[in-house]
Amino acid sequence: MGATIVLLAAAPTPLWAMLEQMEGNSLIVRLFFVLGIMLVVGKFAGELFERLGQPAVLGELIAGIFLGASALGIIPTAADDSLTEIITIFAEIGVVILLFEIGLETDLKQMFRVGPACASVAAVGVALPLLGGILFWMSPLSNPALTNGDQFTTGIFLGATLTATSVGITARVLNDLRVMHSIEARLIIGAAVLDDIMGIILLGVVTSLVAGAAVSFLAISRSVAVAIGFLVIAVGAGLLLAPRVFGLLDRMRVRGVLLGCAFAFVLFIAAAANVAGSALIIGAFAAGIILSGTNQFDTIHDRIKPVADIFTPIFFLSIGAQFDLRLLNPFVDGNLQILGLGFVLLLIAIVGKIVAGWAVPWSKFNRPAVGVGMIPRGEVGLIFANIGLTSGLLTRDLFSAILIMVMGTTFIAPPLLKVAFGRGGVTDAADEQTDPLPASEPEQ
Amino acid sequence: MGATIVLLAAAPTPLWAMLEQMEGNSLIVRLFFVLGIMLVVGKFAGELFERLGQPAVLGELIAGIFLGASALGIIPTAADDSLTEIITIFAEIGVVILLFEIGLETDLKQMFRVGPACASVAAVGVALPLLGGILFWMSPLSNPALTNGDQFTTGIFLGATLTATSVGITARVLNDLRVMHSIEARLIIGAAVLDDIMGIILLGVVTSLVAGAAVSFLAISRSVAVAIGFLVIAVGAGLLLAPRVFGLLDRMRVRGVLLGCAFAFVLFIAAAANVAGSALIIGAFAAGIILSGTNQFDTIHDRIKPVADIFTPIFFLSIGAQFDLRLLNPFVDGNLQILGLGFVLLLIAIVGKIVAGWAVPWSKFNRPAVGVGMIPRGEVGLIFANIGLTSGLLTRDLFSAILIMVMGTTFIAPPLLKVAFGRGGVTDAADEQTDPLPASEPEQ
Repeated sequence: MGATIVLLAAAPTPLWAMLEQMEGNSLIVRLFFVLGIMLVVGKFAGELFERLGQPAVLGELIAGIFLGASALGIIPTAADDSLTEIITIFAEIGVVILLFEIGLETDLKQMFRVGPACASVAAVGVALPLLGGILFWMSPLSNPALTNGDQFTTGIFLGATLTATSVGITARVLNDLRVMHSIEARLIIGAAVLDDIMGIILLGVVTSLVAGAAVSFLAISRSVAVAIGFLVIAVGAGLLLAPRVFGLLDRMRVRGVLLGCAFAFVLFIAAAANVAGSALIIGAFAAGIILSGTNQFDTIHDRIKPVADIFTPIFFLSIGAQFDLRLLNPFVDGNLQILGLGFVLLLIAIVGKIVAGWAVPWSKFNRPAVGVGMIPRGEVGLIFANIGLTSGLLTRDLFSAILIMVMGTTFIAPPLLKVAFGRGGVTDAADEQTDPLPASEPEQ
Repeated sequence: MGATIVLLAAAPTPLWAMLEQMEGNSLIVRLFFVLGIMLVVGKFAGELFERLGQPAVLGELIAGIFLGASALGIIPTAADDSLTEIITIFAEIGVVILLFEIGLETDLKQMFRVGPACASVAAVGVALPLLGGILFWMSPLSNPALTNGDQFTTGIFLGATLTATSVGITARVLNDLRVMHSIEARLIIGAAVLDDIMGIILLGVVTSLVAGAAVSFLAISRSVAVAIGFLVIAVGAGLLLAPRVFGLLDRMRVRGVLLGCAFAFVLFIAAAANVAGSALIIGAFAAGIILSGTNQFDTIHDRIKPVADIFTPIFFLSIGAQFDLRLLNPFVDGNLQILGLGFVLLLIAIVGKIVAGWAVPWSKFNRPAVGVGMIPRGEVGLIFANIGLTSGLLTRDLFSAILIMVMGTTFIAPPLLKVAFGRGGVTDAADEQTDPLPASEPEQ
């Protein structure tokens, strides 16, 4: 408890005095107040942005910033605090349920039709920012004083933080804009899942690099095989077995059996994905795809919604809370350099993904929308930044610049995406006649 | 993580080997596996008991025992483990949502009609076990070697652990038996809420006693006033304001605003109750009563259900997990004495509450059912036992005897209640003509 109080005391607001009074109270009382404030402020901010014509998720992120450590200090971010740990776990469950919902709404057959296009968008969207990061740090523009490693290792590391699109934020924005069933949305989500997989593989490679290991072609191939193998085996086996298992569950009488088991299933597959060397959210997405093939799909889809409504905002508010508002003050010594670095990384991050929209020359769709849709970075980028900081490779300044890039992409994408869809229009996925991505004749 | 592994190693089962392999994995992966196993095993055990004609909650408790530290060791119970802390928080949120649901389903007007009857049942049901506990420990049957305090203080302490009915377990059993709308159920729930309030006041008194303070009549009166005052003010102000606030929320467009704010409201009132010197569950119950008066009642009731289906079983499985199966082996030295002590406490606990069923001589209803319905002890009793152990007043042996009493009441009540309702029948609360508890003419 002491840790929170120290942290909160740094924020000059009378609100922490109230929380300080609660120091004598149990963890659960503080948790209830913090969760309650996060939910109410998040929902109201979301409503405000929706009324202003912006995606609600942007409101939740900004609410997170103002409830975060650098402003009101209500959302705890001190690493050694129990409350932080629990809020983080709620946030992780939130993003897992979000990806499960997206998986539930994914039509696998349609996904296979856009498979090659997704792979192409993802590959370009990963390669360009990675190269951009390396070239930038190898150039005279870099400042070697900001790292403790050699230029090439740091360059690869910086590039890697730029690769993975945040499926969570992207999906929320697409949902908020009500374009989830368009060709563009399918391309974006598919490519974002693929580049998350690529990002996680890169994470393995980069972690070995940081640890000083030689990166062998064999080790990389193995990581790739594990991640892809997990998805294929889980979804394949799941699609065979799940309809029978959930058919049995449907005949049970006890209240909540179906939802309880579906939720447990998501937790199992997510955890298994992590153990197999993939990521929680990849497993959650796979679980959603698997259960979308059961007869109980409608009930599960309907009942997981209220659970998602409570957990998911915690994820977005937590991301916002990580941002240190004080970094934006250019009159503080050193902030200008960090802001400049963050700006360059942001530029590489944006350009690299927008160009990826043109990676499918064989078919027609709203290219700027797909490129812009890939811009948001999130959880994977933040994981990278954390590893860099704790391993000692990055100084806190370079870490902050990466955070500015991650947050910047997250804030810039929703309004840009709204503009892109507004100008270029939406390609309807339901219209088979004009489906621009026929899997059988990709050369058409 | 080390703590779990040490704990698990004590259980002779190959399952911990799997979890040990996961030691290298993050907290969240272990949490996902444990929560998933708890949900699936709990739901299946509940289904089994339902099919055997027993309340589902009994299945969840037994599932908890077998997943607990003394058997499979899957549910962690080591106090210094992060995983235990998080599971405990999920369990506490579970019981809070349960009491909120009960509050939602409570008709306040009907409650006032049975108010005097509830108070009478609660008073007798608290006084008799308290007296029983004191007399037992003052008698030659007691063993002063088992405590570090004087006989009278220990007697009051033991008596206090016997007072509070577990609203959570009782409500689940009544729900499982589908008698929630009977006069008996209203009496039981009302009296259980009142004796929880009395129990919490006693807790304050006993804690001062253990700390060596003089218990003044003034201090006791103050605690009583705070607890009752909180309920009256919260429900009073809530019933005036909530309909307007939730009417506004209903006009918002963002997904999940209503549920998010209702859930936050429950968290706030529960935490406020705790800060005001009452208990989380009393606040949650008050929040339910308040929101039952809004026009959005149906939507809230419908959407909180899936959330409850996921959190509530964790509470019952966690209670089961606290029970040490090895205490039941009479061939281990000292177990026989502990079992004997536990049995005497259990007897006092059962008889004291059953007699309370006859505390309302002015009206007719199924008296044995009301008495039996008050038997289950739970969270409040366990809190008492914990305080006694950590303050050094109780030895671990006496602590274990209290645990046996708490667990025993929990296991004996559901089947007994089923028998009591089967023999004595159910008095329908909806039938105004035969309502045996008219508030205006209590002498009738």
